[in-house]
Amino acid sequence: MIKLREVAIIGVGMTNFGKLSDSIVDMGVQAAEAAINDCKIEKNQIEALFLGNFVGEVLTGQALLAALTARSLGLRGIPVTKVEGACASGGIALRQAILTVASGQAEVAMAVGAEKMTASPTGKVTGALAGALDQQLDGRSGLTFPGFFGLVAQRYQAEYQSDMEAVAQVVVKSRKNAVKNPVCYLRKEVSAEQVRGSYPVAEPLRLMDCCPISDGAAAAVVCSVDMAKKLSGQPIKVLASVQTSGAPRISDVSSLLTFEATTQAAALAYTQAGITAKDVDVVELHDCFSIAEVVDSEDLGFFEKGEGAEAVKAGTTAVDGDIPINPSGGLISRGHPVGATGLAQVYEIVRQLQGKAVNQVRNASVGLAHNLGGTGATCTVTILTNDI
Amino acid sequence: MIKLREVAIIGVGMTNFGKLSDSIVDMGVQAAEAAINDCKIEKNQIEALFLGNFVGEVLTGQALLAALTARSLGLRGIPVTKVEGACASGGIALRQAILTVASGQAEVAMAVGAEKMTASPTGKVTGALAGALDQQLDGRSGLTFPGFFGLVAQRYQAEYQSDMEAVAQVVVKSRKNAVKNPVCYLRKEVSAEQVRGSYPVAEPLRLMDCCPISDGAAAAVVCSVDMAKKLSGQPIKVLASVQTSGAPRISDVSSLLTFEATTQAAALAYTQAGITAKDVDVVELHDCFSIAEVVDSEDLGFFEKGEGAEAVKAGTTAVDGDIPINPSGGLISRGHPVGATGLAQVYEIVRQLQGKAVNQVRNASVGLAHNLGGTGATCTVTILTNDI
Repeated sequence: MIKLREVAIIGVGMTNFGKLSDSIVDMGVQAAEAAINDCKIEKNQIEALFLGNFVGEVLTGQALLAALTARSLGLRGIPVTKVEGACASGGIALRQAILTVASGQAEVAMAVGAEKMTASPTGKVTGALAGALDQQLDGRSGLTFPGFFGLVAQRYQAEYQSDMEAVAQVVVKSRKNAVKNPVCYLRKEVSAEQVRGSYPVAEPLRLMDCCPISDGAAAAVVCSVDMAKKLSGQPIKVLASVQTSGAPRISDVSSLLTFEATTQAAALAYTQAGITAKDVDVVELHDCFSIAEVVDSEDLGFFEKGEGAEAVKAGTTAVDGDIPINPSGGLISRGHPVGATGLAQVYEIVRQLQGKAVNQVRNASVGLAHNLGGTGATCTVTILTNDI
Repeated sequence: MIKLREVAIIGVGMTNFGKLSDSIVDMGVQAAEAAINDCKIEKNQIEALFLGNFVGEVLTGQALLAALTARSLGLRGIPVTKVEGACASGGIALRQAILTVASGQAEVAMAVGAEKMTASPTGKVTGALAGALDQQLDGRSGLTFPGFFGLVAQRYQAEYQSDMEAVAQVVVKSRKNAVKNPVCYLRKEVSAEQVRGSYPVAEPLRLMDCCPISDGAAAAVVCSVDMAKKLSGQPIKVLASVQTSGAPRISDVSSLLTFEATTQAAALAYTQAGITAKDVDVVELHDCFSIAEVVDSEDLGFFEKGEGAEAVKAGTTAVDGDIPINPSGGLISRGHPVGATGLAQVYEIVRQLQGKAVNQVRNASVGLAHNLGGTGATCTVTILTNDI
């Protein structure tokens, strides 16, 4: 048994998310520089960089994003690697950086997530995202991700006699949180009636049930807990960092009401952290669609199956609720530049645990970030604490 | 200082390279199953998978290749990650698998490299590959990789008063080796006159100076040396596994006659392995173009700068020469399904060190694989030995 080092996140940074004019590389550099400035390390202390990106090659023609971002940052010679696991690419980049430090491969490592989507026609973006479906099977049917999560929502309603009015409360809460959060793309409050009255996308999902196509980048700097304690600042300890794989095709999905990658990652992460779901104070989870937040919140163990939608309606997941979920505004309001999302979630959790969040959860000491790719094909769960 | 475990490669497998009808996933599965059968472990012993792929999303619309390949193999739940570093993606996948085992994150890990290129029009493939140039700078000039290596060849000739007749001997040797090697795409002997007489691509490079657009996959299974010793078979020990980054843009290249990522990776790898270039018995290096083999052979320390071309002409790099280079046939004859190449190189080195290669180098005990991406933007060097 090899004893790995405890790891801390010492700096985070992100661009605002939305419709931005910069390139993927430029956004990645901005987020990375913000993360470096957040912890006052020198750039040349960074010994490895992982970059999460999903649709950059298809939409912008640019590969080698890790190398370009590192060089533009002024980093030379160090190993730099792009990782891709569809919408979980950012979470994977963070986990690789954590493991690199935990195993002593680097004293300081950086994870960056970046994506550029709004400059491409919507159809092209939807097509690129559908690359995370199996193009030999599911893709041929014309299925896209709004279609897939529409099926999830239909099944949820049928199984639990729930209705989309309750699910729409995810969006109402999301926008309410986003109003105050400048990093978010969509910041205007909406009512459940407005959500249900918005344009049908894939029934029962309406336009406002869907996260918007977005640009943006986010980044984190990690080092050992021992090193972090010697630096000034408010380091946040990594209690668990888990990555799992689940069904990459609809034909592999055993149930539309649960993502096995999430349930497995959550179980492993709680064990690794030595806690249970009840010990988590604040959550950023993968609400690519309103129904996804509901299913994820159940899969992560915060609610019994079938009770997630009603919990949102009851205010349990509000910033001042029993288990605040997506106080940042989540993917639905912050936007979902796919490769960047996993690190934007971690940005929010770090700020919450530092007591510096825009929508601060009182006495938040343990936070969880959950990033999901494809039809539940890949998942990361990260558990953090300010008790270092 | 964390003591990492020594790691061994216990199984390798690959498809033939060439024009194949299978999908990326299907080829990856074939190579992976061959590697698993090569070492007689059970599939469910694999605890992590890394997949190297570069142009799959652009050419086939398929993302999430690691998850799809793993699931098609019958692997469930384990972390699976696609890595991309242009043409070095396969080498990066292997290094991640090695580090995962070295740090105790997994007892057994798998690296797969796979690429599907021939089904797309040549112009589209060239465009996708040019994604490894900076599209904000170099790409706008219309530069492609044959153009870049054409510049390298021009500079080489000017600096060293060398000529392309000598460089063409790389191709002559490559085809001579490939004749016997069934995994190779191009297996007909050619003369230097035929190389020089072939179609001009980017002067002074002719068609035969360029590796062919290809399909294929290769894979390797790794575990700890301690575990490997308990298994039957011929495990090969990893003496060094290094990844570096260099210039991702022409404007960052300090010299067209050397790739800093290679020289740095070689220096680090020799130190890690405790050897010098003189101790290497057999080499597979990144001959994407004939001139690349010459420059790489110098950068890796086998020849003084400017002496690589004449060394090929003198037979020094032949299978029975002082330092056999690319006895497999290399990229030029095996083909270059970009994400798979790094692992095909390792396949050949493992077979050489097991004494089972098609073009067996006598008494080969230490082998080196060198994988290069972009304009020298990213590089991996792996040093292996049969002295376990």
